[in-house]
Amino acid sequence: MSEAPADLLIRDATALLWEEGRGVHFAVGQDVVVRGGVIASVGPTGPAVPAVEAIEAAGRVVMPGLINCHAHSPMVLFRGVAEDVAEERWFNDVIWPMEVNLTDEDIELGARLAAAEMISTGTTTFADHYFGMDAIARSTDESGLRALLGATYFSTDGPAGLERGLAFAERWRGRAGGRITAALAPHAPYTVSDDDLASTSRAALEHDLPIHIHAAESRVQTKHSIDRVGATPIEVLRRAGMFEAQVLIAHGIGIVPEDVPTLSGARVGVGSAPKGYLKHGTDTTPVRLLRAAGVPVGLATDGAASNNTSDVWESMTAFALVQKAVERDQAFLSAAEVLEHATVLSARAIGRGDDLGRIAPGCRADLLLVDLSGPRTQPIHDLAATLVYSARSDDVDTTIVDGKVLMRGRKLLTVDVPGVAAAITERLPRLTDRSHGRSIQDYDA
Amino acid sequence: MSEAPADLLIRDATALLWEEGRGVHFAVGQDVVVRGGVIASVGPTGPAVPAVEAIEAAGRVVMPGLINCHAHSPMVLFRGVAEDVAEERWFNDVIWPMEVNLTDEDIELGARLAAAEMISTGTTTFADHYFGMDAIARSTDESGLRALLGATYFSTDGPAGLERGLAFAERWRGRAGGRITAALAPHAPYTVSDDDLASTSRAALEHDLPIHIHAAESRVQTKHSIDRVGATPIEVLRRAGMFEAQVLIAHGIGIVPEDVPTLSGARVGVGSAPKGYLKHGTDTTPVRLLRAAGVPVGLATDGAASNNTSDVWESMTAFALVQKAVERDQAFLSAAEVLEHATVLSARAIGRGDDLGRIAPGCRADLLLVDLSGPRTQPIHDLAATLVYSARSDDVDTTIVDGKVLMRGRKLLTVDVPGVAAAITERLPRLTDRSHGRSIQDYDA
Repeated sequence: MSEAPADLLIRDATALLWEEGRGVHFAVGQDVVVRGGVIASVGPTGPAVPAVEAIEAAGRVVMPGLINCHAHSPMVLFRGVAEDVAEERWFNDVIWPMEVNLTDEDIELGARLAAAEMISTGTTTFADHYFGMDAIARSTDESGLRALLGATYFSTDGPAGLERGLAFAERWRGRAGGRITAALAPHAPYTVSDDDLASTSRAALEHDLPIHIHAAESRVQTKHSIDRVGATPIEVLRRAGMFEAQVLIAHGIGIVPEDVPTLSGARVGVGSAPKGYLKHGTDTTPVRLLRAAGVPVGLATDGAASNNTSDVWESMTAFALVQKAVERDQAFLSAAEVLEHATVLSARAIGRGDDLGRIAPGCRADLLLVDLSGPRTQPIHDLAATLVYSARSDDVDTTIVDGKVLMRGRKLLTVDVPGVAAAITERLPRLTDRSHGRSIQDYDA
Repeated sequence: MSEAPADLLIRDATALLWEEGRGVHFAVGQDVVVRGGVIASVGPTGPAVPAVEAIEAAGRVVMPGLINCHAHSPMVLFRGVAEDVAEERWFNDVIWPMEVNLTDEDIELGARLAAAEMISTGTTTFADHYFGMDAIARSTDESGLRALLGATYFSTDGPAGLERGLAFAERWRGRAGGRITAALAPHAPYTVSDDDLASTSRAALEHDLPIHIHAAESRVQTKHSIDRVGATPIEVLRRAGMFEAQVLIAHGIGIVPEDVPTLSGARVGVGSAPKGYLKHGTDTTPVRLLRAAGVPVGLATDGAASNNTSDVWESMTAFALVQKAVERDQAFLSAAEVLEHATVLSARAIGRGDDLGRIAPGCRADLLLVDLSGPRTQPIHDLAATLVYSARSDDVDTTIVDGKVLMRGRKLLTVDVPGVAAAITERLPRLTDRSHGRSIQDYDA
């Protein structure tokens, strides 16, 4: 019986594999066969399967595409605009007054630039939380990335906030060839009322949508929440019925041991963006606590106005270094465990543990080829350590989503970076104007 | 009067400049003219000066080459070999037993690979502290880098240690067209006796050599030193007469306020390698204290067995992030101040404030061209922030030492990386053999 040629064959690569109980490990000489956007097989190199496209990958690593578990992708527009200022000024005096200026066209340009940065740094899926989400969805469709998109709302928007978020989700879920999935995206427990959080929970269950929300962003927020309402931010969410749904929590820095019983039974994940935490002089996500509780912690970049980059690989290296530093324990989190956070656990954190984050039959074909022949990644004693501590996203040679090549030999195929960057640069005077005195919101967490 | 053509003209670049009192700033549309390895002029783009080589640099940044203030460059051989283990095991069980295996040829191969990594990441000068220093000097001559080289010795070597270090310095200082300068390199106050430290101080003064030494590597070391000999490591060095000479201190994490009177009057600098400090779960260099004391803190990578890379640009970003984190102050160290640490202060830290680290007439022509057109570095609101927080060493397009181009368009011109990496990979079984049970030294700081 003859079979149609495969869509893509990656040949003779060193594959980053994962199995329950064994964790991340590597196998040399592996062929990965892709059919219909899905990994059909992975196994030792044999006779070449007929394929529309074949990539000879000897000496390169094939690994799952990275997942950005919390982003505000168009904020690349404000990369570097608010440096060396304290957090309240950062929000109230700079970023939120500037966000008032954004048109849908600005947001689409920002989303395209961020897409280029993400593809070029090995991200294949991003979970976005922002305004103007239709523009981001259009950019996602065009860029070839996969995304979990949620339209941000505050209680100051009234009931229209959730309604618009729900309408966005219904409009876009399953679009872009199935690459777009949707979430409800209330901003945070300190900007969304208990009633609106409860409405969100009900809507999530009724429409089978996950919820993506900022919560317990700092230990101070947790303390303020306890002082104000007698409950941690996580307990506030629980009382609103949120953990009946799938929940993605951004940051979770202020998660405390008393939150563990709530979290460990729930369908919940946390996105951690450690570079920005260092830069803002804050604590970091309590990874040891969450690992012990069985809560998947995935990697994230947050927005580039605080993180300055949208590079999950950089987040991975920072995550590893910062965890050892805050635990004051060189032995905490092996490089293989860090790679597990970057792949399988990131997929679980966004509720996609079944079909993303692994190179296994039936998973979506979201793949990277990594070239370790450069001087910083030689010699190789321990491939996991090479990937986490020596390599960086610039060593990603090829980025593939749903079996489609979005970057080959570091050449981006779906975004015109010079054109987008020039269009953004022209707009900067208007984007950064604060003379109007308005703001998206007032920060008082 | 006609003048001979310049050796190199960099045309229409955005220049990173520095002046006392003003600090780091940028000027667009600048021409840099190089004659005889020295910057002859920098100023607004005018009629093109005749030059043997001209580089059109419109849209690119020209900045001083980075200075690695503390390295063990051949330790790239052991990159990733000792991961996720505590510090004493790292030294005693893994690294020091493996270092016994190194031949001069191994060291030369390691030095070449490190040279390739340094050139490709924008380092133009490195301060090296290791065994087999003649091999490193040969590699430096060949690679085109500039280096301050010191042959490591312990008191367990007897008087031969200092003698060999001095002989190395006399043999190599001023060689490689003046690109090699030499230092005396006693290992540390906990491995070199007070008498040998005093002999080193006398030899340094007599032969006009700087001293490069590990000291106050951690707060625990400082405490141990006080417990054992009633003095901080810095005070131990002072009593040995060391601060009569120019001194480069590696790490200095355990420098305490009582050391300030000694340091602030001395010709002394500190090299800080923050990535490894995170990874090893230790404290970091007390930059606020040292800045207030007027002690220049430069950037460093330490050895790649702990740091996993030899990339000063990465150290710069980590330095900025870690300082804000440990000070818990987003406003501490502006991006422009961080760039001052990476350039002028790094030059001063190694005793070369007069002729390195700045783009100014009379300084050596050690220069980088940086391409910020990629997606992670657009748009540009604040060029200093773009360089420190968004760019990375992969955005260095061209590396120049003494007016000679060592990397152009990211192509390395002086090191054959595939050949060196293959030769090293062949040697790994022998290099990592620990069955002999010997060690370079016993770590008990």
